[in-house]
Amino acid sequence: MTGKFIVIEGLEGAGKSTAIKQVMQVLAEKGIEDITSTREPGGTPLAEQMRTLVKEGHPDEPLTDMAELLLLYAARSQLVENVIKPALNKGHWVVGDRHDMSSQAYQGGGRGFDKTVMENIRNTVLGDFRPDFTLYMDIDPVLGLERARGRGELDRIEQMNIDFFNRARARFLELSENDPSVTIIDASQSLEKVTADIQAALKCWVEQQ
Amino acid sequence: MTGKFIVIEGLEGAGKSTAIKQVMQVLAEKGIEDITSTREPGGTPLAEQMRTLVKEGHPDEPLTDMAELLLLYAARSQLVENVIKPALNKGHWVVGDRHDMSSQAYQGGGRGFDKTVMENIRNTVLGDFRPDFTLYMDIDPVLGLERARGRGELDRIEQMNIDFFNRARARFLELSENDPSVTIIDASQSLEKVTADIQAALKCWVEQQ
Repeated sequence: MTGKFIVIEGLEGAGKSTAIKQVMQVLAEKGIEDITSTREPGGTPLAEQMRTLVKEGHPDEPLTDMAELLLLYAARSQLVENVIKPALNKGHWVVGDRHDMSSQAYQGGGRGFDKTVMENIRNTVLGDFRPDFTLYMDIDPVLGLERARGRGELDRIEQMNIDFFNRARARFLELSENDPSVTIIDASQSLEKVTADIQAALKCWVEQQ
Repeated sequence: MTGKFIVIEGLEGAGKSTAIKQVMQVLAEKGIEDITSTREPGGTPLAEQMRTLVKEGHPDEPLTDMAELLLLYAARSQLVENVIKPALNKGHWVVGDRHDMSSQAYQGGGRGFDKTVMENIRNTVLGDFRPDFTLYMDIDPVLGLERARGRGELDRIEQMNIDFFNRARARFLELSENDPSVTIIDASQSLEKVTADIQAALKCWVEQQ
C-alpha cells in the first residue's frame, strides 16, 4: 500500500484536533505505522515564518488580502514540496491539519477573491496535487467561535466578524458537496456521535485502498 | 502636475544606485519636491520581512522557486497598496529601485516560469497598475557581477550562475523593447556617458508630463 494524503478541514472550534486523534487511531488499528503529521499554514521552518506573518501581521502596517493569499500559498509550496511529497514518496501516510480547501474557503469565500483567481493560484502552485481523502468538520460559526474563544485569545483571522465565517462555511460546504473525496462530518453532534462518524467514514475508505 | 511612478531596473552591478541619484537630481532641477523613494523587494515593515525570507532563505530548508515568486509578489502588494499608491494619490512622485520587471526577468527569464504564469500573477496582484517611466540599465552579467562582487558578499540570488543572469538579461531586453514606457540605457559605457544618457532621457520625458 502506497502513502496517502488525508486532510482534516473545518472552521475554528469545529473539533479538528479531536478528529485528527481519531484518524491517527484508525490508521494505527489498520497497521499503518509510518505517518507524517502536518499543519497549515506552516509545518516547515520557512513556512512557519510565513505563518507568523499571516497570523500576527504588523502593528504599523495592514497585511493586504492579496499578500495574505500569496503568503499562504508560499507556505503551502514549502510544505508540499519539502515535506508532504517526500513523505508520500517514501510510502508514508500524511495527515494534514488543513490544506488547500481552507484557502478556498477563507480567502475565496471569506475575503471574496474571485473563483478564477483562487483556481489559478491553486493550479499554479499545486498542479494536480490533491488530498486523497478529506474530512470536513462542519459547524455553525457561532458555535465554533464560542468553542474557540474558550481556548484563549483569538488571532488576527479569528477576530474577523461572523459574516466572514458564514461565507467561509458556505464555500467549505459547496466544495465538499462537489468533491467525492470529501466526507462531511456534522461537528455539532455529540462527541460520541462525531467520533463514530469519523471512524466509520475513514475505516470504510482505508479498506478500499 | 500629478505624481508619477519612475522605476530603475537592471542586473546587479548595472549602476542602479548611480542612476537613482541622477533621477533625483533631474527631478530636483525640474522643481519636483515631493518624492517618495522605494526599493523592491521590501520597502515596508512587512515587505522587508518577506525580503529577508527571499534573500536569506533557511539553512535547513530550500526555498522553492514558487514560494520565492509568491513572496516577491506578496511584498510588492504591500509596497504598492501601502506606500506607492498612497504617495501617488497625494501627488508625490515615486522613484522605485526595481519593480515588477525584475520579477519578470529573474523569475520568468531566470527561473524559467511560464510567461502565462508570470502574466497571471502580475495581473492578479497589480491589476493594471504600471510604472509611468522605466530606465532599464543594461549590462553584460559578467561585467555586472564583477562590479557587484567588488561591493562584498553575494546573497542567495546573486550566487546563481551566469546562465541565470543571461536569461534574466534577455528577458529584461525583450520586455524593454516591447514597452514604449521603458528607456534602455547602455550601462557598459563610461560613467559620464551613462549619466548624460539618463539625464537626456528623463528630462525629455518629464517635460512632456
